[in-house]
Amino acid sequence: MNTLPPHVRRARRPAHKELRLASIIEAARSLALHKGVREVTLTDIAAEAGLAKSAVLRYVETREEIFLRLTAEGWSQWATAVGQSLGDRTDGTVEELAELLCRTLVDQPLFCDLLAHVALNLERHVSMEAVLGYKLATLDALNDLTEICGRFLPELPQPAARELIGDLSLLAGALWQIATPPPALARLYAEEPKLAHMKVDLLPRLTTAARALATGLVTGGITA
Amino acid sequence: MNTLPPHVRRARRPAHKELRLASIIEAARSLALHKGVREVTLTDIAAEAGLAKSAVLRYVETREEIFLRLTAEGWSQWATAVGQSLGDRTDGTVEELAELLCRTLVDQPLFCDLLAHVALNLERHVSMEAVLGYKLATLDALNDLTEICGRFLPELPQPAARELIGDLSLLAGALWQIATPPPALARLYAEEPKLAHMKVDLLPRLTTAARALATGLVTGGITA
Repeated sequence: MNTLPPHVRRARRPAHKELRLASIIEAARSLALHKGVREVTLTDIAAEAGLAKSAVLRYVETREEIFLRLTAEGWSQWATAVGQSLGDRTDGTVEELAELLCRTLVDQPLFCDLLAHVALNLERHVSMEAVLGYKLATLDALNDLTEICGRFLPELPQPAARELIGDLSLLAGALWQIATPPPALARLYAEEPKLAHMKVDLLPRLTTAARALATGLVTGGITA
Repeated sequence: MNTLPPHVRRARRPAHKELRLASIIEAARSLALHKGVREVTLTDIAAEAGLAKSAVLRYVETREEIFLRLTAEGWSQWATAVGQSLGDRTDGTVEELAELLCRTLVDQPLFCDLLAHVALNLERHVSMEAVLGYKLATLDALNDLTEICGRFLPELPQPAARELIGDLSLLAGALWQIATPPPALARLYAEEPKLAHMKVDLLPRLTTAARALATGLVTGGITA
């Protein structure tokens, strides 16, 4: 590479930077899918990407910035998946909307895991510039989802659709943590009959909540 | 104290242990209310209680065990508060139930904060004996709440009441984190008009969700 003339080397740098950043993000994705977001350190990510930690820190601020980027990507993929399923349909039912929103969420287990970490951890360990970038990307996806859902189910006003999507994203994050217990806790659930009621099966539980929320928002509108 | 005869000294020990444990829990409560659960370390708690960290560890397993005890207490207080408000009334409306459940939750800000930490952090850093103790205490409160709510609003079947309470507890935890941003993020919300939609005012937002959930659960029952 150093034999190239300087103007070419400079020109290649942005693309190279993008590739390096992408490889860091892929390393984090792979590790977090395997062992859960909370267990993945910046050192792990650097090792998985084949880089020194100091090198990783030339491309991202913190471990949390990497995960915030993955969360933004999850929002965008959620909006895309819902949009692809519904297209321009305007004949929706609460039932179909609830099932689709939940299935497309649960199809992204890493996104569900990340959603519980955003306000609690991720946004607290990055620059405000990074938070703003994340929020604006999320807002785009939220606006798209609101529009698609409101068109699909015209009885659901836009503010109610926004509320439904926001609440579901929070429930998905929280329920995913319960539905995916560490091994010792999974054994406890299996061995202690009194805890049978407390086990969570993510998709049916989330879908019940989505159906109830959507029904209530359609019936009552939102008054607060 | 050492001048007391040995049988008296021995007799005093369990009471003394309880007092010491209570002082540790009060120290954690006071710190967590002031600066948020996530910022409070075991070292902080020991200092606040006027003890060495090693002394604290004679009474509790970990920082997380202390917070799990405070969460169990929050569940019990929530059930007590709802029970005191509703007594044996059977003339409930969805609106009144939603408002009461949310007001009594928001009245306990530390409980709301803790609820987001349970599955993500607290249960993962204590013995399974401690988790079981926490779960059984929570289950008692959840059963009480389910019974009180089902009696107050007879159209709400018990499984639906349980679902409502569980979902609200998760939403309260997640929404509390968003509604209580760190100072830098609060400034960002104030300064960036595009983020106006993303600010959360805990009580009205939670109450809207509670009303919708309760309406939907009454209307549709739960089918999953």
